[in-house]
Amino acid sequence: MRFGIIGGGSIGLLLAYILKENGTNVEIMTRTAQQAKVLRKEGLHVVSIEGEKKSYDVGAIPLENADWNVYDGVFITVKSYDLSQLSSYVAKASKKLPIIFTQNGLSHFTFAQQFPDHFLIAMTIEHGAIRKSLHTVEHKGEGSIRIASFTKKGIPDSVKQLGISFQEEKNPWEMLLRKVTLNACINLVTALLKMPNGALLENASANRLMKQLYEELEAVFPEIKRLLTFTEVEALCEKTSRNTSSMLQDVMANRPTEVDAIAGELVRLAKEKGKSLPTLQTLVLLLEAEQMEKGVTTND
Amino acid sequence: MRFGIIGGGSIGLLLAYILKENGTNVEIMTRTAQQAKVLRKEGLHVVSIEGEKKSYDVGAIPLENADWNVYDGVFITVKSYDLSQLSSYVAKASKKLPIIFTQNGLSHFTFAQQFPDHFLIAMTIEHGAIRKSLHTVEHKGEGSIRIASFTKKGIPDSVKQLGISFQEEKNPWEMLLRKVTLNACINLVTALLKMPNGALLENASANRLMKQLYEELEAVFPEIKRLLTFTEVEALCEKTSRNTSSMLQDVMANRPTEVDAIAGELVRLAKEKGKSLPTLQTLVLLLEAEQMEKGVTTND
Repeated sequence: MRFGIIGGGSIGLLLAYILKENGTNVEIMTRTAQQAKVLRKEGLHVVSIEGEKKSYDVGAIPLENADWNVYDGVFITVKSYDLSQLSSYVAKASKKLPIIFTQNGLSHFTFAQQFPDHFLIAMTIEHGAIRKSLHTVEHKGEGSIRIASFTKKGIPDSVKQLGISFQEEKNPWEMLLRKVTLNACINLVTALLKMPNGALLENASANRLMKQLYEELEAVFPEIKRLLTFTEVEALCEKTSRNTSSMLQDVMANRPTEVDAIAGELVRLAKEKGKSLPTLQTLVLLLEAEQMEKGVTTND
Repeated sequence: MRFGIIGGGSIGLLLAYILKENGTNVEIMTRTAQQAKVLRKEGLHVVSIEGEKKSYDVGAIPLENADWNVYDGVFITVKSYDLSQLSSYVAKASKKLPIIFTQNGLSHFTFAQQFPDHFLIAMTIEHGAIRKSLHTVEHKGEGSIRIASFTKKGIPDSVKQLGISFQEEKNPWEMLLRKVTLNACINLVTALLKMPNGALLENASANRLMKQLYEELEAVFPEIKRLLTFTEVEALCEKTSRNTSSMLQDVMANRPTEVDAIAGELVRLAKEKGKSLPTLQTLVLLLEAEQMEKGVTTND
């Protein structure tokens, strides 16, 4: 089997590593020709959780030159704010091609609704990963992977046989709501406070803030209580205690963050229910204000 | 007339300057013997708003050696979190001695209620000032001064004749609520975002956050609408646009902040009304979390 991965960021490279470990033929579709060249020439370098260095031969091609229909399935791992640039590609793709989205937040939930006849699937990945160079990724923490189909077509055998250990979920909305709650609680707070995930357990005020945010979300979306307890949020902080959240990595690198994908849809849906999310809104405005001061704008 | 000023911080030195300009005999009661010595030897140095350098002879004495009852009135300009250390001094002071409090926040409102028979007065100062050395203060912006008696005794002639141009208020609670709203909106947001006051007008997200905070306070304390419009909050940002708020100065210097005095009582009073202040609470928790990371604790 041959799978394509769009995006050579930390999640794209991590997925390539997981697939290669299980003997899948992988091709990474990169934004820049430079990254495709480096990956082809140097191979994919991985520092495993145990600190072991491994390398793998991978295919790589600039996205603009790629034909998605040569693959048995395509993972889209680009940041959510870059998703809109892929609309025309998805529109042109075969309706039989499984396309798997790994974004944080909820904006791909809306994105997928534009393509009701395509074979779209959502995946949430709670692993920690940091990209160290154009072709090197460090695997920082093991976590669960969940998968849910956006359509009635379910999960195809080609994906089930990839050797990725995942939990299959029936309801993509609930799966994404669970993940976005984790991301809001961990990523927004750590990005503002410039803290590793574990500090949310050690710093009493940061912990109270994370709890306030969790309770505010749970009050507006009561299904969260069933999907994710606060103890589980804390357990993920513990498990990834020395990790820098992806949003903090973005802030540190003066890149746009996924704050809109993570919070924007939550705020809109709360409004539809006649409710507000002032704690979340405060964190969003603070992050936006910081980014504005630094001159970082989103790609939207 | 001879007035004592407790505290040689930016407000203490600024008040000494204002009083000296009007020919009042001033003695500054300092926490350290060192500052008293420097002030006596070098005099009080002032950089006026126009940039002019001036110096004045002032009396100075360590607080522990001072007898408050030799003065016609005493200003207490220490930070609110140091107020509790002055309880025994106030208890011993003559009930005829006007004692004027200049703290931010509301904790001196509670403090004053312990001394119903004393001659306690509240003053709010919207001037900008930065202490540059133990005996040098820079006057950074002119603003209003308001004064209200905590007791039925009113404002004594000795204070009215000081030559300080102030507005007399009947209701100390409303006067302090007005000021604490200004401080919450400007100081908390600038301290978190490490911005000068003027950035609250230029940075759209910071401005929206300040407005969200103002509206949340106004919803819980509807009298704010009558005491202070959002336009007035913005006007003060404009007037002090290049200033660093006192709370940001504290954060930068790794000192405890007045966050508890400014927000603690608001949160408690909201709770008494069965309401909450999630935006304010979020800003407080973020500031506390930051201070905890730096190892700065309050003096309480």
